[in-house]
Amino acid sequence: MAGTNKTRAAVLGGPSVILVHPQLGENIGKAARAMLNFGLTDLRLVAPRDGWPNEKAVAAASGAAEVLDAARVYPDLASATEDLHFLYATTARDRAMAKEVLTAREAAARLRGDLAQGHKSGLMFGAERTGLTNDEIAQADMVLTIPVNPAFGSLNLAQAVVVAGYEWFMAADATPAARLDYGKSVPATRKELNGLFDHLENELDISGFLYPPDKRPSMVRNLRAIFERAALSDQEVRTLRGAIKAIAKGRPRGGGA
Amino acid sequence: MAGTNKTRAAVLGGPSVILVHPQLGENIGKAARAMLNFGLTDLRLVAPRDGWPNEKAVAAASGAAEVLDAARVYPDLASATEDLHFLYATTARDRAMAKEVLTAREAAARLRGDLAQGHKSGLMFGAERTGLTNDEIAQADMVLTIPVNPAFGSLNLAQAVVVAGYEWFMAADATPAARLDYGKSVPATRKELNGLFDHLENELDISGFLYPPDKRPSMVRNLRAIFERAALSDQEVRTLRGAIKAIAKGRPRGGGA
Repeated sequence: MAGTNKTRAAVLGGPSVILVHPQLGENIGKAARAMLNFGLTDLRLVAPRDGWPNEKAVAAASGAAEVLDAARVYPDLASATEDLHFLYATTARDRAMAKEVLTAREAAARLRGDLAQGHKSGLMFGAERTGLTNDEIAQADMVLTIPVNPAFGSLNLAQAVVVAGYEWFMAADATPAARLDYGKSVPATRKELNGLFDHLENELDISGFLYPPDKRPSMVRNLRAIFERAALSDQEVRTLRGAIKAIAKGRPRGGGA
Repeated sequence: MAGTNKTRAAVLGGPSVILVHPQLGENIGKAARAMLNFGLTDLRLVAPRDGWPNEKAVAAASGAAEVLDAARVYPDLASATEDLHFLYATTARDRAMAKEVLTAREAAARLRGDLAQGHKSGLMFGAERTGLTNDEIAQADMVLTIPVNPAFGSLNLAQAVVVAGYEWFMAADATPAARLDYGKSVPATRKELNGLFDHLENELDISGFLYPPDKRPSMVRNLRAIFERAALSDQEVRTLRGAIKAIAKGRPRGGGA
C-alpha cells in the first residue's frame, strides 16, 4: 500500500492539504476521502484536538486510509508549512486582509502553475467551527474563497475540501496561469520568510516601533502582509535581511523607545 | 420564513434536486445544506426509506431547514419529475447507456441555458449505496458525471450535490476577477512610493549597503521591484517608512561602511 501511495503521490504531485486545529476525527477522515477523489494525497494536521491517530478518522475515510496513513502531525502552522513555497488560506468570506483573494477556480489554475514550475504549495483549512484565525491567514500568500449563496454560506470542512480539490482536478488540462518569473532564483520557502519576519520584528522591537503591546499583533500582521503579497524569492529575502542589518548597524543595542 | 423562501427561490430559480430512494435522513439534511449554499431550493424526495419528515434530516441541515420544509415527497420518479422539461441523471461513472454524457461543468452551462429559455430542469441523485439504477437513468435526458481520480472515485451523496450545485452557481458567477481589497486604505500614489524608495535608499547609502557604486543601480532596481509588486496602500507606505525610521534611529549619522 505504501508503494501504491508513493507512486500515486509522485504521479499526481498536487498541493498539500493542511488542516489547522481540526476537531473531530470524523471530519479529518472525510477530508481525506475528499482529497483522494481528486488526486490529493499529502495531508498535514496541525495539532488535531483529539490526538492522532484517530479511529473515527479511519472509519470516515471510506477507503482513503492511505491518505491517513501518510498524514503528518505538526505542533504549529509554521512547522507544518516550512517547506512550502506558496500557502493558500481557504476562508468562507472576506476578512478585510490585505491579501490577494482568488476564487477556488482561479486558485486551481495558480496551483497548477506552481506545480509546473516545480514549486510546492499548500491549501490550508481552519477548524470546523471557527475557520482560520486572522493570524493563521496572515501566514498565507493568498486567500482562496469558495463562491456561495450570499444569503447562506455554510459549507462544512470536508465540503470545502471537495470544492477546492475538485477545482484542482478540473484544472489539470488548463494552461498554467502566468506566474511571476523568478529567473535564476526560486520562491522563498515559508522557513525563509519566517526568518525574515523574525529578523525584522526583532529589530522593530528593539527600536520600540511595535508599541504599545496591544497593537503589536495587528502591526506585525500588516507588515507581514506586505511581504507575503510580494511573493519574495530566496534572493530577495537575503537582500532584505541584508538591508535591515545594514540600517540597524551601529545603533546602540538596548537603545529603546 | 416561507416568504423568504419563496422570494429566494423565485430569484434564484435553479434546477430541482431529486433524491431517489434516499436512505439516511442525515444525508438528506446534508444535501439540503449543500443545495442552499449554491442557491438551490427545490428539493424532491422519491420514497425516502425512513419516511418524511425526518428529525435527523433537520439536525444535519444546519440552518437549511427552509429547504427541508418546502421539500415534497413522491411515490415514484415519474410523479416527481412530470413538470420538468429536462432531467439530468448524476452518476459516478459511465454506465454504457445511449445517453449524452456531460461533466458537471458542461451540465451547469446547459442548466443555465434551460433556465434562460424558461425550461424547468432537475438534477437526479441515486440512493447512497447503489446510486441510480439503469431504469432510473433511462428516464433522464442526459447523464451528468463528476470527474474524479480514476483510482478512487467515492464521493458521497451530499458531496456530489456540492459539486453539481457549485458548478450551477459558478455558471452564473459574473464576479470580476479578484482584485486586492484595500479596505479603508487606497493604493499608494507614485509620489508616495517614490518617497518610500528615496527614504529607504538614503538610509542604505548611509549604511554603506548600496556598494560598490557600479552595482548600486541593479540593487536599487531589485529592492524597488519587491515593493512595486506588493501593490502597497498609502497606509502601508507610512508603516514601512515608520519602520525604517525606527530601525535607523539612534544610529550615529555619518557612520559609513
